[in-house]
Amino acid sequence: MRTFSKQEHKYLQVADGIEQMIQEEVLKIGDKLPSVRVLSEEYGISMGTAFQAYYHLEGKGLIEARPKSGYYVRFNNRRFPGRLSVKKPEPVVNAVSTQEMIASVFSNITDADLINFSIAAPEAALLPAAKINKSVIHALRNSPNSCLYYEHIQGNPELRKQLSKLSFNGGIKVSHEEILVTAGCMEALAMCLKAVTAAGDAVAIESPTYFGIFQVMESLGLKTVEIPTDPVDGIDLEYLERAIKKFDIKACVFVPNFNNPLGSCMPDNKKKELVALITRYQVPLIEDDIYGELYFGKHRPRTCKSFDEEGFVLHCSSLSKSIAPGYRIGWCIPGRFLEKVKALKFMHTVTGTTLTQVTMAHFLSIGRYEHHLKKLRALLHTHCLRYVQGIIQHFPEDVKLSRPDGGFVLWVEMNEEVDGYKLYQEALKYGISIAPGQIFSATGEYSNCMRLSYAHSYDDTVDYGLKILGGLIKKQMRS
Amino acid sequence: MRTFSKQEHKYLQVADGIEQMIQEEVLKIGDKLPSVRVLSEEYGISMGTAFQAYYHLEGKGLIEARPKSGYYVRFNNRRFPGRLSVKKPEPVVNAVSTQEMIASVFSNITDADLINFSIAAPEAALLPAAKINKSVIHALRNSPNSCLYYEHIQGNPELRKQLSKLSFNGGIKVSHEEILVTAGCMEALAMCLKAVTAAGDAVAIESPTYFGIFQVMESLGLKTVEIPTDPVDGIDLEYLERAIKKFDIKACVFVPNFNNPLGSCMPDNKKKELVALITRYQVPLIEDDIYGELYFGKHRPRTCKSFDEEGFVLHCSSLSKSIAPGYRIGWCIPGRFLEKVKALKFMHTVTGTTLTQVTMAHFLSIGRYEHHLKKLRALLHTHCLRYVQGIIQHFPEDVKLSRPDGGFVLWVEMNEEVDGYKLYQEALKYGISIAPGQIFSATGEYSNCMRLSYAHSYDDTVDYGLKILGGLIKKQMRS
Repeated sequence: MRTFSKQEHKYLQVADGIEQMIQEEVLKIGDKLPSVRVLSEEYGISMGTAFQAYYHLEGKGLIEARPKSGYYVRFNNRRFPGRLSVKKPEPVVNAVSTQEMIASVFSNITDADLINFSIAAPEAALLPAAKINKSVIHALRNSPNSCLYYEHIQGNPELRKQLSKLSFNGGIKVSHEEILVTAGCMEALAMCLKAVTAAGDAVAIESPTYFGIFQVMESLGLKTVEIPTDPVDGIDLEYLERAIKKFDIKACVFVPNFNNPLGSCMPDNKKKELVALITRYQVPLIEDDIYGELYFGKHRPRTCKSFDEEGFVLHCSSLSKSIAPGYRIGWCIPGRFLEKVKALKFMHTVTGTTLTQVTMAHFLSIGRYEHHLKKLRALLHTHCLRYVQGIIQHFPEDVKLSRPDGGFVLWVEMNEEVDGYKLYQEALKYGISIAPGQIFSATGEYSNCMRLSYAHSYDDTVDYGLKILGGLIKKQMRS
Repeated sequence: MRTFSKQEHKYLQVADGIEQMIQEEVLKIGDKLPSVRVLSEEYGISMGTAFQAYYHLEGKGLIEARPKSGYYVRFNNRRFPGRLSVKKPEPVVNAVSTQEMIASVFSNITDADLINFSIAAPEAALLPAAKINKSVIHALRNSPNSCLYYEHIQGNPELRKQLSKLSFNGGIKVSHEEILVTAGCMEALAMCLKAVTAAGDAVAIESPTYFGIFQVMESLGLKTVEIPTDPVDGIDLEYLERAIKKFDIKACVFVPNFNNPLGSCMPDNKKKELVALITRYQVPLIEDDIYGELYFGKHRPRTCKSFDEEGFVLHCSSLSKSIAPGYRIGWCIPGRFLEKVKALKFMHTVTGTTLTQVTMAHFLSIGRYEHHLKKLRALLHTHCLRYVQGIIQHFPEDVKLSRPDGGFVLWVEMNEEVDGYKLYQEALKYGISIAPGQIFSATGEYSNCMRLSYAHSYDDTVDYGLKILGGLIKKQMRS
């Protein structure tokens, strides 16, 4: 649990109190707040602490300072657009095919000129480059062969020790011998899928879900069974059990923490139930926890792996979303399937890049990663709230929005008339890239949705981008 | 073609003359050579040039300087052990299964205490670490985001431009747009195989062949058809055509240049015939050219890709065998299958490591790679000849040896009674690692063979290792 200094505790208490009043509309949008002096007198706190409380609320986008006037309520969480609808189709087996759309959306992954709302990863400005570079130099100086030689097949042992420590945050107790380093989380998912399935097998996934998951399934000749996911409760377990019985499901691939694209988090007790269910049916669960460390709440959510007693959970994660997308460092903890996954890794890519692994081993070992994560979480939470405001300001009133508990993305459900892919194509003409809803399902659902990444801090360009998007949505509704 | 300075040309001419006399046994082993002074008078060259000629021959292991006595013929190429036998089984389709043996041999890939004859890659001492590290620093300083962000899906454009230049050495004319960077050559091979085959398909490979090729085929559910390879003439094309007709072969995976484990090189005209054959039958040829730059002769051999007019050749290579095993940089030039291979790369590992790619782009662009290759080729050729001498000295007389034209490995055929895997297990007790013959075939052939890497320079430890191996072989023959 996070511990507070006395001072920190005080201003957060005050801020929480004010936030609650805003939630309950005791303080309404546009209301003037007490001055810093009055606040300090009311709560019996120093002027400094009072100022900190307002500063904190301002950072969250809930209040704003107007020059020479004071603080005003800016934004009310309750004005969050309507809740998303949960679709519950009868379970069916689908052949996957959204590849062309995806290829189109991600062909511009390195184009710096785009207003990029489509990549769910931290932009370079959020990363502590100078500090990481120091670890690169350290790695070059301290490796007996300048990191030029092959790394251990399972990955650099020192890095794995650091990852074992990191995994403990999510409740996982494993030694470094049980961890396998991969080329990003995607290779971890691909290897784990290959280890527990054969071509033609049916695999359960969430709906909507990250398109990378279908893509790799398609390339492995697997079939998808989509399980509805509630933004609050997570995966529908009864539905899942029904599907397991009906379709001889050979594996599940779920993203229980800050699932992409919903950003929601399955409650910990529900994770426990899920692990009990898959263990009962001996169906391996591939848990994608890539966003697990990017929580907005006070605690890191637990992982399914932390409830896994019989080794049926294959836990996958990476450093790509938090610290170094270009380093391509992911890992998996494959439980009882370790030897199989290891053999596949050796067969397909032999071993990982030595230099980036040794660099990250050093960066993690000196505590810089934890420090960076704290900052990143706060920033992303602020970005998220600001983007929601921008959307409320610029988009039509009937849009519905997800309420992310962590991660990088907002899921936007638009009027039924709006086509996400058409919107993507139109927006691209303005140099704006979004991820259309269609690519998050194999069934052609979510055509009126899109995923927006709030990785970039809210500035004039972002505001302009959202304004244009809002205009394009309205245009589609009129036509 | 390599150009010589006048001086260089002179001493090489003299050395070649003497080498020929040794080959033809005009000069016999143990014969004293003329003194440097006499040589300079005979050939009308300076003492310095005469000395250089002897120094060159000494480097090749053909002559030796005895203190206070002069130069003597040490070694005669014609005493190379007997030629390898070529096995021509009727073509059959085999299910692959040698995985456990391979896993055992390569579980110690990073163990520095072993006398390691099993890894066909340069040891760290052969690599210009300080110069590469300068390129790392250059990459960190000159990348707008310290190489932390995602790289282009096809790989760093500057690196691809350098690779396109490099490919021209093997006769390949392609733009960087036709090149895809991968995580080592193994990922290139795996992606190319996936792009052109489906589970259950039959694929032609050489016999013997690199075990990594079966392994990945096994994991993709492919069947192997082994085509005999002659150490001099390369792949048996008539046999291949017969196999294509009989088994509906969907792809070939061949290593025409310095094939692993034979080290032999298919003649260029034969490559042209091969490409014509596979084009006629529209059977994609995956060409593994990973050792192509490591030639011992005067010219780089051509590639099959250089004869490919219709795009049926998928050319694969890497920097792992020449400059940076741990950087995991490979590439492929997949011809007409580019889009398919690119989609698979995105699905399975998204993109490659940015830092190592930008580093190598710089290292190649300033000409350091070509410079390094020249040195490495000469060193490996010397290693190879020294190892042959060691084997002649320590192994039983009836062993047969390959005569590598390039690359890292010798293939040793022992008495029929000797079991390569048993030899591997026995040798490991002495801290010596070899690659047993069995892992180079899916049919259980080559049980009396082993592959020896001469990556490590010939020193007392290597000499000791070969002596122990010789003793273990003799012991198996007696028992």
